[in-house]
Amino acid sequence: MIKIAILGATGYTALELIKLLLRHPGTEIVALTSREEQRPVCEVHPSLTGQLDLQLKNLSSAEIAGQAECVFSCLPHAASAKIAVELLKHGGCKVIDFSADYRLDTPAVFKQWYNEDHPDPKRLGKVPYGLPELFRSQLTGASLIANPGCYPTSAILPTAPLIQKGVIQPEGIIFDSKSGVSGAGRKPKLNFHFPECNENFSAYGVGTHRHWPEIEQILARFTGQGTSVIFTPHLVPMDRGILTTAYCVPTNPNVTQGEVESVLRDFYANEPFVQIVETLPGTKDVSGTNRTHIAARVVRDRVVLVSVLDNLIKGASGAAVQNFNLMFGFPETTGLVH
Amino acid sequence: MIKIAILGATGYTALELIKLLLRHPGTEIVALTSREEQRPVCEVHPSLTGQLDLQLKNLSSAEIAGQAECVFSCLPHAASAKIAVELLKHGGCKVIDFSADYRLDTPAVFKQWYNEDHPDPKRLGKVPYGLPELFRSQLTGASLIANPGCYPTSAILPTAPLIQKGVIQPEGIIFDSKSGVSGAGRKPKLNFHFPECNENFSAYGVGTHRHWPEIEQILARFTGQGTSVIFTPHLVPMDRGILTTAYCVPTNPNVTQGEVESVLRDFYANEPFVQIVETLPGTKDVSGTNRTHIAARVVRDRVVLVSVLDNLIKGASGAAVQNFNLMFGFPETTGLVH
Amino acid sequence: MIKIAILGATGYTALELIKLLLRHPGTEIVALTSREEQRPVCEVHPSLTGQLDLQLKNLSSAEIAGQAECVFSCLPHAASAKIAVELLKHGGCKVIDFSADYRLDTPAVFKQWYNEDHPDPKRLGKVPYGLPELFRSQLTGASLIANPGCYPTSAILPTAPLIQKGVIQPEGIIFDSKSGVSGAGRKPKLNFHFPECNENFSAYGVGTHRHWPEIEQILARFTGQGTSVIFTPHLVPMDRGILTTAYCVPTNPNVTQGEVESVLRDFYANEPFVQIVETLPGTKDVSGTNRTHIAARVVRDRVVLVSVLDNLIKGASGAAVQNFNLMFGFPETTGLVH
Amino acid sequence: MIKIAILGATGYTALELIKLLLRHPGTEIVALTSREEQRPVCEVHPSLTGQLDLQLKNLSSAEIAGQAECVFSCLPHAASAKIAVELLKHGGCKVIDFSADYRLDTPAVFKQWYNEDHPDPKRLGKVPYGLPELFRSQLTGASLIANPGCYPTSAILPTAPLIQKGVIQPEGIIFDSKSGVSGAGRKPKLNFHFPECNENFSAYGVGTHRHWPEIEQILARFTGQGTSVIFTPHLVPMDRGILTTAYCVPTNPNVTQGEVESVLRDFYANEPFVQIVETLPGTKDVSGTNRTHIAARVVRDRVVLVSVLDNLIKGASGAAVQNFNLMFGFPETTGLVH
Repeated sequence: MIKIAILGATGYTALELIKLLLRHPGTEIVALTSREEQRPVCEVHPSLTGQLDLQLKNLSSAEIAGQAECVFSCLPHAASAKIAVELLKHGGCKVIDFSADYRLDTPAVFKQWYNEDHPDPKRLGKVPYGLPELFRSQLTGASLIANPGCYPTSAILPTAPLIQKGVIQPEGIIFDSKSGVSGAGRKPKLNFHFPECNENFSAYGVGTHRHWPEIEQILARFTGQGTSVIFTPHLVPMDRGILTTAYCVPTNPNVTQGEVESVLRDFYANEPFVQIVETLPGTKDVSGTNRTHIAARVVRDRVVLVSVLDNLIKGASGAAVQNFNLMFGFPETTGLVH
Repeated sequence: MIKIAILGATGYTALELIKLLLRHPGTEIVALTSREEQRPVCEVHPSLTGQLDLQLKNLSSAEIAGQAECVFSCLPHAASAKIAVELLKHGGCKVIDFSADYRLDTPAVFKQWYNEDHPDPKRLGKVPYGLPELFRSQLTGASLIANPGCYPTSAILPTAPLIQKGVIQPEGIIFDSKSGVSGAGRKPKLNFHFPECNENFSAYGVGTHRHWPEIEQILARFTGQGTSVIFTPHLVPMDRGILTTAYCVPTNPNVTQGEVESVLRDFYANEPFVQIVETLPGTKDVSGTNRTHIAARVVRDRVVLVSVLDNLIKGASGAAVQNFNLMFGFPETTGLVH
Repeated sequence: MIKIAILGATGYTALELIKLLLRHPGTEIVALTSREEQRPVCEVHPSLTGQLDLQLKNLSSAEIAGQAECVFSCLPHAASAKIAVELLKHGGCKVIDFSADYRLDTPAVFKQWYNEDHPDPKRLGKVPYGLPELFRSQLTGASLIANPGCYPTSAILPTAPLIQKGVIQPEGIIFDSKSGVSGAGRKPKLNFHFPECNENFSAYGVGTHRHWPEIEQILARFTGQGTSVIFTPHLVPMDRGILTTAYCVPTNPNVTQGEVESVLRDFYANEPFVQIVETLPGTKDVSGTNRTHIAARVVRDRVVLVSVLDNLIKGASGAAVQNFNLMFGFPETTGLVH
Repeated sequence: MIKIAILGATGYTALELIKLLLRHPGTEIVALTSREEQRPVCEVHPSLTGQLDLQLKNLSSAEIAGQAECVFSCLPHAASAKIAVELLKHGGCKVIDFSADYRLDTPAVFKQWYNEDHPDPKRLGKVPYGLPELFRSQLTGASLIANPGCYPTSAILPTAPLIQKGVIQPEGIIFDSKSGVSGAGRKPKLNFHFPECNENFSAYGVGTHRHWPEIEQILARFTGQGTSVIFTPHLVPMDRGILTTAYCVPTNPNVTQGEVESVLRDFYANEPFVQIVETLPGTKDVSGTNRTHIAARVVRDRVVLVSVLDNLIKGASGAAVQNFNLMFGFPETTGLVH
């Protein structure tokens, strides 16, 4: 049994992670941290009543490293890398980081988008990005993994293989993404107050969302080609789920839907969590699972790709468990619904 | 044109009130106040873009009384009565109070439920309660009106006539009420964070909600009989609407549905905003209107009444406009959808 | 591995059952039937893509009995008992019936409420009712189980122990229940068309819902006392979840909340799926699980009980798996989230 | 008072139209038709209880023309033109057609997309398209108006002026649109069954939706330039509202957001129902109104436009009333919330 600590355990990704790990046969949750709450986790997450009898605690990095073999950090950016540095120094403790701290390539890009100096600049660009479907060999046995952003996963999975195989151009891709509200976290804000976002659909962060550079850099890292994309997020009045519609320029203007599907099917042939589907998907098709469904269409001069995933699972905690399995040598699907 | 000021104009009831008054042929909104926001109202309420070009301001009671002939106060309890006292002192200015400050009978009951000394104890119990269907004569030409709570309106309208006419007993009524989330106001809190209340239905305030004594005292005030009821509110994942299911003990155990309906139909025969319906109603039947629909059933030894209304309109701002019309001599339905 | 057939596999309870059984280590789904659809189950339920490669088929009872050791019937009432009779005749095949066919005590009551002659009148009243918390000994090893209705489970679990222990009276209980829309099944109807029930809350079946006699008869069967209750269902704009608010007359007018909780806690002390909670619960606390949360309050002269469950799991398919485990000797929690 | 008939009065656009006309000072609804329902309209639309005492009837075109001066047809395509032809023959009766029958340029394109021979081919291409902001002069006093599709209105309003003024290219525009479920009509279907589309977000009709040619032809008709666009609709779990995100290629790669906004502001300077806003809009900003809000951004090499409208009002019945006002010489905003 691998001993697990979860940092920042009051949010939605932590809750989902706890639920997944409770069904994982090889893990034991030994510590849950919070700076603001020091009470039984069941009081904060009533859905854990009777399932997990642990107290939320404000622990030092030494206390955490002393108990846990694997630490999942659900802390905010910058805060997360600060403690990761300390945990890794202690040794004997691996880290899966949900924040954006280790996803980008350089401290300069980090500073540009997150308005902070990076707390651990040397590691930046060297930490494997936790999309096993693209970077599995780097993740196997890793000590530190940058768990991907939810939007980037939904954007990268449908397009990366098609860029790599030369089916679509690496430039000019438009990602129009739509997310449920849980992606915004659990901290109450007017934008996410029920009567504000219920019966409402809105665009936000057009041209300014921090997942934009992540998408570009990871696509470039995987394909080895410079990429230039546009990314527009929208807020959907539902709890969970992301659907991304990607508009891509094909390299061959006569490409067919069948050819696009075929390249994707070949690429993901052995992947338990990626399905190429014919019928246009909805987020509910994969809700509660670690799966992504991808459909392709050719419309006029564009390849249109539609991908769906559960932002809290394949977009966060499920991906983290998948990465954990690779880190510690479990079969990759252990504890996950596929 | 009656000059209107709205105090506490950043919330949902104020927004709804503004929309109603913009269609009212006899009113002109001259001032909107807020302690926290001093900017154009359209920035706070984008749905007013192009409709109302006014700045939110932090005004003194003298400044308000100097401009307005009628003040609608959407301030919190205690704060509301404090300013009402001052406005009424200035003279020349009438007040419709959305808070609970003038609804209860005595300062002692107010203190018991609101944990504060009442700022204007002498007036308590003498201010007319703004349910025109029950207290019209007191409201006509009044200077100060206590606008009713949303739950009390949904509980009192179906039962008061039946108690008065001796069809049901004044004791032992159980009000099981369900409300959309806008009833909780616009201030972000965890309970009303979208992912907390979406896909969720919960009970709250069982035996402790402040609308409980209001229901009992107003039923008693209208019927002249002591009443004893139970009131249980619930939160529904929708914006607006209240449905109350009332379980009442008939005085005649053989009473029929037809008899109950007949008493209600007679009582409300000339009321433009109350409809007795045969099919069980849903909140959407009256959404966006100032109407209440009421249905009756006899089940075993109980008369079961179901009432629906829009908590922001008949439960708040529509009732306020109805009261305003009575105050200033407009036809009662002016500016309202019935 | 127990071989499983599911009859009427196109609906929501069947889908949920399939998902649960796919995680159950002791079952293999061998047949899925439908009269209307003969195509891969993944086309009808896209969320099963990549998980279950089976064709929906229109099979005879002989064909089913020839393949399956346990049959879960999600067929409509009357149709379900007809095929159950045949399956049981074949021998070697146990049946868990989701319909109401084997829940009531007598053919006369069945006819009164379901307007049909019962297809298997002799068995009526003798088939164990699948609430393990109340009837476990009858369920262990049984050949035929009447899986409970969703509303009855939410009504019976909080009240049955309190009647049995003499804390509340068996008469005069009012059950005010609220359910998500999945409880109405998957067949499109105007009432359940999205724009009709979204942003709507309505009462239905007041005094006429078929779960009413089920609640009374099962409470009587368990407690050995005549019961008389009122049951009112409501429709909540959400997918899943039931909350029942029960208003009960205590036998001792001075009973305290602590005493009520204590009796419930003792009764359910060893039950993995029932939790007595202090904070008033919401349906989301148990969404996706086989759990029920129950809270108690004493208000005026009533004991008010609030229970929540997931109508598709503890209210249907989770209960069925729990019953299956008892039927076939698996630990009762196998395959279930508690 | 202009006498009004509404054909196909059981659906959502008809309901919304009735509500608008009830507040219009210059209209009287004299007939409501339905082929399937012959009963009081309040039974079909409970929200009209006490507001409109009319019977739904199955009337011939002669009977309709004998009573009404203006006919709003909410009939399906092909059926609508068939009766329009007859109504216009009778004389003395004007027609506003909600169907697509008179929107396209040629019978060939109609046949290609609607799989039917056009019932009135001679008029095709000559009937004014009911977007007053673009075609006002043709609509004033017209006898027959093609009321626009909801998606086309949301796509055309933000882009047509920018194409006309040479700010963006007429080719290569990608319209990614998202609509609430009421846009799909009131006929129950599995796709729009509450538990199917609640908590779900899906793409549909990618490259096949019938509003696609309408957008291209109307943009071309207005700008006099050939256009080529891509249009992708999505379904949002909410009642009403459309948000369209348009990705356009600027003619000047250095164009600024301010320049784009300025062209739009100038173009719509005197339009009561179009607002250019700075903050990215949500559908709720215009819910229940006849307004469109449009925001612009420049992202990389694209102009990104976001427009919102209420699909049942500016996207259907509000536009129809606006057109009616032009037809009959009322001030254009009569009866409409702006």
